[in-house]
Amino acid sequence: MLKPYDFANEVADCARSVEAALDRYLDRARLSGPGPAAERVVAAMRHGSLNGGKRLRPLLVRQAAQVFGVSPEASLQAGLAVEAVHCYSLIHDDLPAMDDDDLRRGQPTVHVAFDEATAILAGDALLTHAFAILAEESCHPDPAVRIALVAELAAGSGAGGMVGGQMRDIEGEKGGFSNGDIETMQAMKTGALIRASVRMGAILGQADPRALSAMTAYAEAAGRAFQLADDILDVTATSEAMGKATGKDEGRGKQTLVGQLGLEEARRTLEAMVADAVMALRTFGPRADGLRSTARYFATRKN
Amino acid sequence: MLKPYDFANEVADCARSVEAALDRYLDRARLSGPGPAAERVVAAMRHGSLNGGKRLRPLLVRQAAQVFGVSPEASLQAGLAVEAVHCYSLIHDDLPAMDDDDLRRGQPTVHVAFDEATAILAGDALLTHAFAILAEESCHPDPAVRIALVAELAAGSGAGGMVGGQMRDIEGEKGGFSNGDIETMQAMKTGALIRASVRMGAILGQADPRALSAMTAYAEAAGRAFQLADDILDVTATSEAMGKATGKDEGRGKQTLVGQLGLEEARRTLEAMVADAVMALRTFGPRADGLRSTARYFATRKN
Repeated sequence: MLKPYDFANEVADCARSVEAALDRYLDRARLSGPGPAAERVVAAMRHGSLNGGKRLRPLLVRQAAQVFGVSPEASLQAGLAVEAVHCYSLIHDDLPAMDDDDLRRGQPTVHVAFDEATAILAGDALLTHAFAILAEESCHPDPAVRIALVAELAAGSGAGGMVGGQMRDIEGEKGGFSNGDIETMQAMKTGALIRASVRMGAILGQADPRALSAMTAYAEAAGRAFQLADDILDVTATSEAMGKATGKDEGRGKQTLVGQLGLEEARRTLEAMVADAVMALRTFGPRADGLRSTARYFATRKN
Repeated sequence: MLKPYDFANEVADCARSVEAALDRYLDRARLSGPGPAAERVVAAMRHGSLNGGKRLRPLLVRQAAQVFGVSPEASLQAGLAVEAVHCYSLIHDDLPAMDDDDLRRGQPTVHVAFDEATAILAGDALLTHAFAILAEESCHPDPAVRIALVAELAAGSGAGGMVGGQMRDIEGEKGGFSNGDIETMQAMKTGALIRASVRMGAILGQADPRALSAMTAYAEAAGRAFQLADDILDVTATSEAMGKATGKDEGRGKQTLVGQLGLEEARRTLEAMVADAVMALRTFGPRADGLRSTARYFATRKN
């Protein structure tokens, strides 16, 4: 019999596992290639990834895998790959040519702590090693599963996913975005990697097409909720609670749903998104309680 | 019976196939992800990759695969993935924070034709899609082969390969590099991807460990020859013949083997590297003539 799902404990345990596994992986010896990894780029990769992040994407991989009976240990490596992609995207997004942020989680960003060239290279290397991590036999014994994970992560991260969303976001700063354009941009910029995380968990669990489709519906609703909550926090939270600058969306003319809908309507929309996410899991039993808790957490988080 | 190997024809045919296949792949419809690919980033990916390059890395994939009886058509997709990685690395290397180059093959570089943010994202997307290309079933029917290709490309491109070499190159501009340091840097910066190209061809051909080891020895010697020839050309060729600025290594204090050995000794060393590369192929018959021609071409090319 399953114990009632202890969300806070699960989040903390997952974050600890990811931090420790990233630390082990980023040990120079593991960054295999024909030559010895350059110490400076490895130090920058560590700075940009071993930073006490919440590790929500590996949590989603783990919780989605759990729906199909896959243990947290067996889903950790796939979660690590998604987190490496997330960390690379933050390093590149923080660059002067992009969002030009000096602080992340209260620490200097990678291009401030090192320099721009090193930050570009550290991001490139984290992205590259995400795929190396998925290719290792320890990720899953079946090569067909591992290559499906590679395909899923690449689709979520590329021009039709995260990178495409970031491009649309930059273009949107010029103005003229409709609500639909904002939703497409956000579905790609943050939603695509959340979607890939959930689907990678399902792929690890060798979910059948119907289950994969339900998991995808969950992921898309949860991803929308995550982004809308982020936009609401940008308006309402203090910079101290977030560990980064807030109020910056309006400051740089970024168009968000909160700006278009107003705060009250945005909060109602957020509730509806969470309800959609939970509804998508209705055919799964208590093994999906993790995913249910995470969707609710997305709407209530304070940072 | 095999015809005598027609190198010029093979190079031209391979370049044409790669250009056409990249064009098809970068058609928006193929850049699959959960959302519609952002047109601006796709345009920048096209600018940075459909530029009449020599496509030497896909040529190496093709020639290495041919040693094991794999047809040019069957090795094209793996070659495409390597070329996508090569093109991403050029886009990022040209950025103001890195080499700050305005011209490549006589055309404005991506950050000049678009802007820095778009160039960073286009590079990120090309790197990501390289792995998507390898994950497609059309790359090779066996998932075990496809995942081995992913592992090989990631190892060659990451912190222990190309990116690590680029980091060392930047650090080397501060001076104090020995001949050994320069060779390590170059073996990683350009050698690692050349090595991966040859090994990926051998992996497509499901080479046994002994054959793979001979192919690796070829690739390492050919990679050294390629880089030394590049350094010699930087000293001796005109900017017009190269389609990019020359003489810039000395101008920015980059340390190269030519600087350390002198031009005459560098030319003798180059000949010895080509001889090593050809020697590594001694157990293979006429099917390895392609690789032999390419090693010789590396030492005699004019641009």
